[in-house]
Amino acid sequence: MAASSSVNAAQAIVGLAVSSHGSHSADRVAVPAGGFALSSLAGRSLTCSHSPRFQQQRRCPRQASRAARRAAPARAAAVETLEAAATEALVEKSINTIRFLAIDAVEKANSGHPGLPMGCAPMGHILYDEVMRYNPKNPYWFNRDRFVLSAGHGCMLQYALLHLAGYDSVQMEDIKQFRQWGSRTPGHPENFETPGVEVTTGPLGQGVANAVGLALAERHLAARFNKPDNEIVDHYTYVILGDGCQMEGIANEACSIAGHWGLGKLIAFYDDNHISIDGDTEIAFTEDVSARFDALGWHTIWVKNGNTGYDDIRAAIMEAKAVKDKPTLIKVTTTIGYGSPNKANSYSVHGSALGAKEVDATRQNLGWPYEPFHVPEDIKSHWSRHVAEGASLEAEWNAKFAEYEKKYKEDAAELKAIVSGELPAGWEKALPTYTPESPADATRNLSQQNLNALAKVLPGLLGGSADLASSNMTLLKMFGDFQKGTPEERNVRFGVREHGMGAICNGIALHSPGLLPYCATFFVFTDYMRAAIRISALCEAGVIYVMTHDSIGLGEDGPTHQPIEHLISFRAMPNILMLRPADGNETAGAYKVAVLNRKRPSVLALSRQKLPQLAGTSIEGVEKGGYIVSDNSSGNKPDLILMGTGSELEIAAKAADELRKTGKTVRVVSLVCWELFEEQSDEYKESVLPAAVTAKISIEAGATLGWEKYVGGKGKAIGIDRFGASAPAGRIYKEFGITADSIITAAKSL
Amino acid sequence: MAASSSVNAAQAIVGLAVSSHGSHSADRVAVPAGGFALSSLAGRSLTCSHSPRFQQQRRCPRQASRAARRAAPARAAAVETLEAAATEALVEKSINTIRFLAIDAVEKANSGHPGLPMGCAPMGHILYDEVMRYNPKNPYWFNRDRFVLSAGHGCMLQYALLHLAGYDSVQMEDIKQFRQWGSRTPGHPENFETPGVEVTTGPLGQGVANAVGLALAERHLAARFNKPDNEIVDHYTYVILGDGCQMEGIANEACSIAGHWGLGKLIAFYDDNHISIDGDTEIAFTEDVSARFDALGWHTIWVKNGNTGYDDIRAAIMEAKAVKDKPTLIKVTTTIGYGSPNKANSYSVHGSALGAKEVDATRQNLGWPYEPFHVPEDIKSHWSRHVAEGASLEAEWNAKFAEYEKKYKEDAAELKAIVSGELPAGWEKALPTYTPESPADATRNLSQQNLNALAKVLPGLLGGSADLASSNMTLLKMFGDFQKGTPEERNVRFGVREHGMGAICNGIALHSPGLLPYCATFFVFTDYMRAAIRISALCEAGVIYVMTHDSIGLGEDGPTHQPIEHLISFRAMPNILMLRPADGNETAGAYKVAVLNRKRPSVLALSRQKLPQLAGTSIEGVEKGGYIVSDNSSGNKPDLILMGTGSELEIAAKAADELRKTGKTVRVVSLVCWELFEEQSDEYKESVLPAAVTAKISIEAGATLGWEKYVGGKGKAIGIDRFGASAPAGRIYKEFGITADSIITAAKSL
Repeated sequence: MAASSSVNAAQAIVGLAVSSHGSHSADRVAVPAGGFALSSLAGRSLTCSHSPRFQQQRRCPRQASRAARRAAPARAAAVETLEAAATEALVEKSINTIRFLAIDAVEKANSGHPGLPMGCAPMGHILYDEVMRYNPKNPYWFNRDRFVLSAGHGCMLQYALLHLAGYDSVQMEDIKQFRQWGSRTPGHPENFETPGVEVTTGPLGQGVANAVGLALAERHLAARFNKPDNEIVDHYTYVILGDGCQMEGIANEACSIAGHWGLGKLIAFYDDNHISIDGDTEIAFTEDVSARFDALGWHTIWVKNGNTGYDDIRAAIMEAKAVKDKPTLIKVTTTIGYGSPNKANSYSVHGSALGAKEVDATRQNLGWPYEPFHVPEDIKSHWSRHVAEGASLEAEWNAKFAEYEKKYKEDAAELKAIVSGELPAGWEKALPTYTPESPADATRNLSQQNLNALAKVLPGLLGGSADLASSNMTLLKMFGDFQKGTPEERNVRFGVREHGMGAICNGIALHSPGLLPYCATFFVFTDYMRAAIRISALCEAGVIYVMTHDSIGLGEDGPTHQPIEHLISFRAMPNILMLRPADGNETAGAYKVAVLNRKRPSVLALSRQKLPQLAGTSIEGVEKGGYIVSDNSSGNKPDLILMGTGSELEIAAKAADELRKTGKTVRVVSLVCWELFEEQSDEYKESVLPAAVTAKISIEAGATLGWEKYVGGKGKAIGIDRFGASAPAGRIYKEFGITADSIITAAKSL
Repeated sequence: MAASSSVNAAQAIVGLAVSSHGSHSADRVAVPAGGFALSSLAGRSLTCSHSPRFQQQRRCPRQASRAARRAAPARAAAVETLEAAATEALVEKSINTIRFLAIDAVEKANSGHPGLPMGCAPMGHILYDEVMRYNPKNPYWFNRDRFVLSAGHGCMLQYALLHLAGYDSVQMEDIKQFRQWGSRTPGHPENFETPGVEVTTGPLGQGVANAVGLALAERHLAARFNKPDNEIVDHYTYVILGDGCQMEGIANEACSIAGHWGLGKLIAFYDDNHISIDGDTEIAFTEDVSARFDALGWHTIWVKNGNTGYDDIRAAIMEAKAVKDKPTLIKVTTTIGYGSPNKANSYSVHGSALGAKEVDATRQNLGWPYEPFHVPEDIKSHWSRHVAEGASLEAEWNAKFAEYEKKYKEDAAELKAIVSGELPAGWEKALPTYTPESPADATRNLSQQNLNALAKVLPGLLGGSADLASSNMTLLKMFGDFQKGTPEERNVRFGVREHGMGAICNGIALHSPGLLPYCATFFVFTDYMRAAIRISALCEAGVIYVMTHDSIGLGEDGPTHQPIEHLISFRAMPNILMLRPADGNETAGAYKVAVLNRKRPSVLALSRQKLPQLAGTSIEGVEKGGYIVSDNSSGNKPDLILMGTGSELEIAAKAADELRKTGKTVRVVSLVCWELFEEQSDEYKESVLPAAVTAKISIEAGATLGWEKYVGGKGKAIGIDRFGASAPAGRIYKEFGITADSIITAAKSL
């Protein structure tokens, strides 16, 4: 089937145009820069929700919308109609290709979610074929538009699009291996498995918050680096989210702050299909979503016919791009499982294969005569231009960057570091050092000294707190606040939105390898953001979690604010570093480790209370995870080994002093990061914690579970296996027995 | 200072009236039933937000509002004015008493949050003195109005109110011991410490979600038990939340579903003071909160002068009560730290003592000549009536219940069980039992059999899932959905709102001892609701968490959906039971334990995949937490002990069969609930896991950390210390080595 080679009017105005299909030449239609060509349309509301003039529902997708035609260059009306119809037929065929790739892959795996890809194929096609700027052969090209499928269960939509667009990561064989062991097409989108996937989604609401982070990164970098004559940073962030994402609190958190920041280049498609797993959303979700987004400061648009109203989708994107001071929510009303005659619009098409019979019926219904996994030649040919176009887009940008580099040398170097992720040589020399004579201080304050020292040498360091900046001590003193009017600044004010904060930082981290986001709250409130922290670990986002008030040492706020089980709960989480530094040197060590681990997030547990600078602590020690802080034994045979972390290392050191006075040989070990210690050689571990020494005592103001690993069957773990209490910190330490006396008593009993 | 004894017009219309002050007689003004007397005002918008006619800001609180006067009984205007002025002076004095109790307590503790109590004292006074129905001498009276301070850091507001109202739990000595070891006035409100406090707040957003649960409980019980001639269940739920709560995603989740349910007797006061810890809310929170609540289906009202506009507050409550089909948000614009000349309206008054100098200045400014902690006699006298009134309210209700019992015997018995928390005799006989011949089944399905069996005998069992009912298998087949039009039903549809769901269940559980809420999602998504689950554990809410898809056994959905570190993370949490049953009998045992533990929540980890009914499992075994499932040794000296939980117990049993064939004596132990096992006697524990046997192997499809405790230094823990993968379940089990072969190999190596 042949299709017209001309540019559809509506397509032309969206951004990318359809080049001569069938030709593999590199001739490209000029691409307007980042939507600026559309500014003449700013302010024209095409399908604004709540507006009565958009109540009509069109059912004739092949006819280009009047709005689109008005915006098109003048040409002979008859020719236009013919061409548009032919192109639109190709578009519909492409959309059905996407639908059937999803249907067939889910059917073969007998597992997955066909409903969303079938309903969202039109917006997916328009985004990847007509709107987005990317280079399939370099999925990591810096200035690409970002796309996030927040409704990650619909991942076959994204795999189909990546395949059609020419990404090497999703070959036909990968699609056929959907959800199988070792495939690049896992059950939810995973950036670490599939180049072209930006973030890891599936747990609902995470993706839209990641998208806010991606958009924040773009806004920040654009403000820092763009020049009047060279807008070197310039891309959009698109996200598709469903009813499930909309119900999640994290989505509201992230969208509220996105509205506050006015992230105009964030464009969200809300797949409004009225179906969730339990059935019609009527049973649990009847709020007015668009009105809520209006309240959050977003621009909102409603596309009432997302199934076949292609021009409405295009017009909505055009409108969204024209609104530069607000993010846009395009509510796209779709039918889940569109095309399936018996299962569309029901929960049964959400998360199960259609079944052979219904697949056949859907083929019939949508007029799809092909074998499973077939991509028609004209569709292949149509999409094939993206490889050449993508290469040109990147080449163009590279040329632009070369210009930039000539004119703005320092900025270019900084931007290059952010793009590449290369750390500046000698950056670690900025880390502060301490001696036992340095004043006692809370590790949260020492953390701030580190952050401020690092901000001078790491151009990608930015972050902030969930409304506890003055408690978490996270302000970078040389910078102002990242705000709508000052997006070039680096102190991010997240508000009391811990969960959103974590996911936004994941987005920032995954935007560019050189961006180092940190975020902060009280350690106990990692419970609020645990799902986002887990995604950091899984998706290899090297976020730095600055978690202060890390124990009963916070005192009077009481058990709701005192972490107990949190250290062990992160030690058990894969691919994350749980660091609990004891003083200045260990805090510096923790930051060194956190900065170096760009594919593994770090959680720093920091004290509210003052702690002395201990003799024997070191950055190098922290890098090993566990090390000897002091010892008066020889031959690796102390009478007793005392282990501690963070604020309790001081107590262990005191107890050791007392016990040594009685003639004992006592070793004090800091186990500041269990994960790093486990990575050391057996020899090293034995040199620190010899198996032959059974008198081992640990002390930590947290749950004892897990410490059996180090104290062994004959040792003793001193800790807290109950909730905390509201009282001055010293009193709680005493009442709970987190004292040198407890260690001495335990030592006598061993 | 003397005040008029007559009833203020505005007060009279709100609900409770001021009785002859100074008299300690039990003569009470008749109390209109649950706001029904106000129905004539329904639909009259007094201060509806977004309405231009409420743009004026009144600054003369002593003058009763015109609206209030119109509603008052006719009387001579001159007398009315005088009396109103005198009464209003007393009200202001009472409000200042609250403010200074908070100021003085924080000052003495040199720790705490004076700002909110100073700003919210007016609404606090009006609620506890004029509006709410409670019995201070029985804080657990069933039909009391519930009050939740969601902004829990402002707890001195609540302590001051409980003290004035005559609760025994907060004596003056307790206020002086604010935030001290062992006091009943901890740093945040804790129901388990302070009778009169309904729930435990502090972690922001939890309280408003608890309040939704309390209001749901009232709505449900009223629909089930009220009769046209006897509305035996009838109370309001009030909540104060601040900017911090409003930013939290959990609050949006809970308020969205509250709007959906149309909980008309939920009235929320939003303390709109524009200040959070980081400063002005302008830096991170600029959304239109009232418009968001409109979108969520709430009725919204704006009181523009919450500092002195007492009549506006009263009128707003009246209006809120008149709206019966929607919850109401009253946005009350206040000044944080109202009265402090130099610190009001700044973050410095949020979370720190004012300091002696500023306390003096505030005394001057508010005209407060008294010593710290002084409650003027006329204020004591004024509030003293609540003891007698409360007793009468309860007596009246008891009489009403006696009537009810006569006429509606069965309903009365059921309601009594819910009110008292007494479990029906022999309820546990309803638990299903299984034999090894019973068909293999997923524990999620077995869980549903238990839920449905229990629903027949436990009148307080109700709950549901976060949009995964058909995956979590949580539907009670004999009941319909709890919805706006059918609130008497017991299947609750929470939508995709895990965090809100958990906190709502906490509210339900704490509403009445006989309410047994359960809630469900995939086990991995406990990460979304961990903060609420922790509060369940802390506040002793016996919620049952039905967590299915508990391992890599869920297969294709992949690592985002596969829990790894979750079992250990709950085992480390205080006061919660982590149960992982292996088959039908163990699932029944888990439910028996969960139902019996009314002050300790239970997390049930359940399989997606089918599991065989094992020989040797039992309900009694589960009650001990760990027990011998099979053994071919004698003298408590097996060659090898294999331990497993849940779906891996089957694998341990299979490996044991193989190993026994080789002549070994092998014991298989189910460690279904570590917490219960730890509570057994040392003798019992030794009889199950003898110390002398060092060849111990555990197998569990989760993190190995923590298992050292049971396998010991010479044993081996088989588990998963990495993220999962997307593939069919059997394949992942094999690839990860969670197999009988792995056990056999390990056994040979020991």
